[in-house]
Amino acid sequence: MQNMIKIAVLGGDMRQISAAKVLAENGYSVSLWGIDEVFCKMLGQTPCNNLNLALSDCSALLLPLPVTEDGAHLFCPLGSEGHRIHLLEILEALPQDAFVLGGRINPNIKQLLTEKGLRHADFLSNEEFQIKNALPTAEGALAIAMNELPITIAGAKTAVIGYGRIGKILASKLKALDAEVTVAARKSADLATIECNGLSPLFLQINGCQNTLKALTKGYDVIFNTVPVRVIDESVIKELSPSTLIIDLASAPGGIDRNLAQKCGIKVIWALSLPGKNSPITAGKIIAQTVSEILETGGHNL
Amino acid sequence: MQNMIKIAVLGGDMRQISAAKVLAENGYSVSLWGIDEVFCKMLGQTPCNNLNLALSDCSALLLPLPVTEDGAHLFCPLGSEGHRIHLLEILEALPQDAFVLGGRINPNIKQLLTEKGLRHADFLSNEEFQIKNALPTAEGALAIAMNELPITIAGAKTAVIGYGRIGKILASKLKALDAEVTVAARKSADLATIECNGLSPLFLQINGCQNTLKALTKGYDVIFNTVPVRVIDESVIKELSPSTLIIDLASAPGGIDRNLAQKCGIKVIWALSLPGKNSPITAGKIIAQTVSEILETGGHNL
Amino acid sequence: MQNMIKIAVLGGDMRQISAAKVLAENGYSVSLWGIDEVFCKMLGQTPCNNLNLALSDCSALLLPLPVTEDGAHLFCPLGSEGHRIHLLEILEALPQDAFVLGGRINPNIKQLLTEKGLRHADFLSNEEFQIKNALPTAEGALAIAMNELPITIAGAKTAVIGYGRIGKILASKLKALDAEVTVAARKSADLATIECNGLSPLFLQINGCQNTLKALTKGYDVIFNTVPVRVIDESVIKELSPSTLIIDLASAPGGIDRNLAQKCGIKVIWALSLPGKNSPITAGKIIAQTVSEILETGGHNL
Amino acid sequence: MQNMIKIAVLGGDMRQISAAKVLAENGYSVSLWGIDEVFCKMLGQTPCNNLNLALSDCSALLLPLPVTEDGAHLFCPLGSEGHRIHLLEILEALPQDAFVLGGRINPNIKQLLTEKGLRHADFLSNEEFQIKNALPTAEGALAIAMNELPITIAGAKTAVIGYGRIGKILASKLKALDAEVTVAARKSADLATIECNGLSPLFLQINGCQNTLKALTKGYDVIFNTVPVRVIDESVIKELSPSTLIIDLASAPGGIDRNLAQKCGIKVIWALSLPGKNSPITAGKIIAQTVSEILETGGHNL
Repeated sequence: MQNMIKIAVLGGDMRQISAAKVLAENGYSVSLWGIDEVFCKMLGQTPCNNLNLALSDCSALLLPLPVTEDGAHLFCPLGSEGHRIHLLEILEALPQDAFVLGGRINPNIKQLLTEKGLRHADFLSNEEFQIKNALPTAEGALAIAMNELPITIAGAKTAVIGYGRIGKILASKLKALDAEVTVAARKSADLATIECNGLSPLFLQINGCQNTLKALTKGYDVIFNTVPVRVIDESVIKELSPSTLIIDLASAPGGIDRNLAQKCGIKVIWALSLPGKNSPITAGKIIAQTVSEILETGGHNL
Repeated sequence: MQNMIKIAVLGGDMRQISAAKVLAENGYSVSLWGIDEVFCKMLGQTPCNNLNLALSDCSALLLPLPVTEDGAHLFCPLGSEGHRIHLLEILEALPQDAFVLGGRINPNIKQLLTEKGLRHADFLSNEEFQIKNALPTAEGALAIAMNELPITIAGAKTAVIGYGRIGKILASKLKALDAEVTVAARKSADLATIECNGLSPLFLQINGCQNTLKALTKGYDVIFNTVPVRVIDESVIKELSPSTLIIDLASAPGGIDRNLAQKCGIKVIWALSLPGKNSPITAGKIIAQTVSEILETGGHNL
Repeated sequence: MQNMIKIAVLGGDMRQISAAKVLAENGYSVSLWGIDEVFCKMLGQTPCNNLNLALSDCSALLLPLPVTEDGAHLFCPLGSEGHRIHLLEILEALPQDAFVLGGRINPNIKQLLTEKGLRHADFLSNEEFQIKNALPTAEGALAIAMNELPITIAGAKTAVIGYGRIGKILASKLKALDAEVTVAARKSADLATIECNGLSPLFLQINGCQNTLKALTKGYDVIFNTVPVRVIDESVIKELSPSTLIIDLASAPGGIDRNLAQKCGIKVIWALSLPGKNSPITAGKIIAQTVSEILETGGHNL
Repeated sequence: MQNMIKIAVLGGDMRQISAAKVLAENGYSVSLWGIDEVFCKMLGQTPCNNLNLALSDCSALLLPLPVTEDGAHLFCPLGSEGHRIHLLEILEALPQDAFVLGGRINPNIKQLLTEKGLRHADFLSNEEFQIKNALPTAEGALAIAMNELPITIAGAKTAVIGYGRIGKILASKLKALDAEVTVAARKSADLATIECNGLSPLFLQINGCQNTLKALTKGYDVIFNTVPVRVIDESVIKELSPSTLIIDLASAPGGIDRNLAQKCGIKVIWALSLPGKNSPITAGKIIAQTVSEILETGGHNL
């Protein structure tokens, strides 16, 4: 037991408890703190009562996703008031050689870590993490479409804008459920791949994309956007059918002018952080896999 | 226009409006009554203000699903108080040669129809209707699983009990989404088919099935039941993991003792009438297709 | 070892050796005879040199598929001259209580078995055998299409006539490979199922099917027939494109007038016994599974 | 008609006739030369009798794939002796502003083109061409496996080495046919994608890959290699089961020591140029699409 690598897992939501569980199953010695016992118990975990005990002798610290909401205190929505302490306090109690991991480490925390000479990594920027997260994101988007549409996915006319990580998996799942699937992309190599995968390609011209995206105004039941650019602009919105549902998976500012859409009677769902909301246990497992990988390679693959 | 077959569509929910719309698109003259204008407008339909006008000269009457909830009055959840009239009143205003269609026509209404010498059919007992409805039912069950499970369907360990209409489509959709799928069935021909379709067969012995179904107590994330028999009994429930979700699609009494399950901390969702709840427009389209088919064949295929 | 059930496996092709191998793996004591050693070795089996030794004390005798080609002698294409003995000779050396199994047992052999009071079963008429065989048959048909067509299956316009065991699996595999798939069937329940499975239904009227099947003359790349009735008759053949390939999976007389087709320049491949030709090891495994099942249930499931 | 762009299509096999046909359907004026009439007729095309007539006024020249086999003369396996002329002769009869396209233009021909100041492009190096060709390549590999294996693809234990264009499509098609699929790749991002696509990842270490590839010696029915590096070396070959089939899709020198494999009784099929062999019409269509694209963009996308 004394040879096990100890990792302190602090704060966060169900994903963090799931990550702690998987890390423990994979042979790490895990000490959980910052989450009330009732939530830990749901996944068969037991929290540590004392922060110093949790941090003592640990080789790594796993901060939550996000690390903080206010830029200063630990994000601990499942914890009690006493858990909402300043991150500085945590870092001071930490062994100097511990590796600090967290999701969406903001600039001042990052500066703090650097000043203290602590090795650290933001797992959110890890490529494998992003690839693996595309799957729960795609399933979450599918669940929204299933809940919102008054028709079945089978036979529905669907469009996916963008053929990156999320677009690829989402389009493939829609097809697997017998939807008609059009995928809009800019690169001709992507368009060729879309066709090879049995999907209908649509050429997307980002500058002046109005002309090409107007194809989307012809009777689609649902349009999923994955491109973080305002692709669905005024000229497209004004011609959309009010029965078209838009599910926007793009990070801020999103791919559509939501105010205008609302005025035009178009329903837009801006769906962010789907893995954490829809599949927290899977999302936690992905965090644990990424963290293990980073620790095993000493952070070299960052 | 005078040659068009007129069909009166009365009461019901969004399915009924969707059915009216599809019938109109397919060339019938449709008169809607018993649904408030605001709901009809959502699908671009206009209701008739007057029941007698709606019924005059009609060749067929489409009653809703269910026809009635209290055994006497029209089921009209989207109508106003004035729409909730006695079915007798409707039948009396109906041309004598009109064909009456409805879903779940209860025994006293059926007797009434027979006494009045009206040709009639319950589309709920139509085989094609049942087959087509299996698709929105399976998608509805999938949506529930996606909403309830804290993990992705991809990689989830799932079981489907029964390999009839719903079991077949549901198992195939779970597999399409990369779940591990076990299907329990009694007939050896079904077990062979299950295997040929790339799914894992599990022999189900209805009398004394405890032994075989105990296989289900080994770590399944979700179990879908489609068999209207108490297959998941005390001996199975007591050994299920509390993290197993049960989605029961079987009509009353359902396939599981829900009280006992609740006591044992097992979450059971008894999901009935999924097509109407999750995909009302698709469900209405299926009603319209079935009704057209019945009218075209003069009810001979019943 | 003395408690093992002994089964004598005689004659036949690679399927028979594969069946012997699987039966041995499943705990039977197997004695192979009627196949030359060089072929047995390919699957790691060793034949018995002596028929009487092979038959002595056996509880079951597995004859090949077909049992005989001339109605009298053992079918043994992989054996030498000495193996081609009269079946009567075999039956006479057999313990009286042995269970005789074989594929396509012809009437005089059947009469012989009855006269001798030997329990027997033709596994070819076993329903599970037929279901399981549909898979290698469908894959065999797919392989022929891949070999013969100068285009990819992905994107090919394909039709399947009949939606029985083979039609179901074949259509599903064609769709899985991204072909466009139309399935022609007579029963409206089948047509509804075809649609639910994401395939295009085509109503097939067997008597006077010319009108409906003429839809098949519009540019199909390949038509698979599974119906043992002359569905593709003169009126259809004359309008087929010469580039349409027909793969006929129906037993005699087949579903198409091959002479006429040839005159019209239409290529027809009459593909029978595909499991044995394309996937002998899988086919042998299916025989072994069926034989085990029959022996375990004492032949009650026949 | 006089406004149509004229393109001369010379030599080659069925792909070239198919390309000519598609180009003509897409509005080009096409003149075919170097293929006997009997072959052209198969696809409804008519060849030109005279090279000079074929080349006069053409805006583009489509040479075959490969352009030449001996480095000097036109590759024309479907032509007669008179067609096998020196490429120099062709280039001299060509309008000076014509755009020359061909597949696998060797260095001396390339030099010739440059010296003559002719714009030219090798479509084989076009990315979309390579992507689109991956589909017929994958189907061709699948057909070989179906023909060679004595078992069905459904249930077969398969491995794909490499997750590039071909590996991706091939793995997805194997999975669609219900095979068990392991994919070996080096990059951790690829391994994550493999997992997200419902396939089993295997880490492949090119230098010293023996240890990881030894996993492949455990009972695979077929191994497809797509990596043009000797990944399957002596240490792996010696431990492979003789019943494992290897289909090598990698260009020279291929991914396996074929001589050694043969000595060890391992069957290796080195399958090159599958699109041309298995799906010449699809392959020709892809050439035509690529050529159109290159001509429309003036070769800028090269």
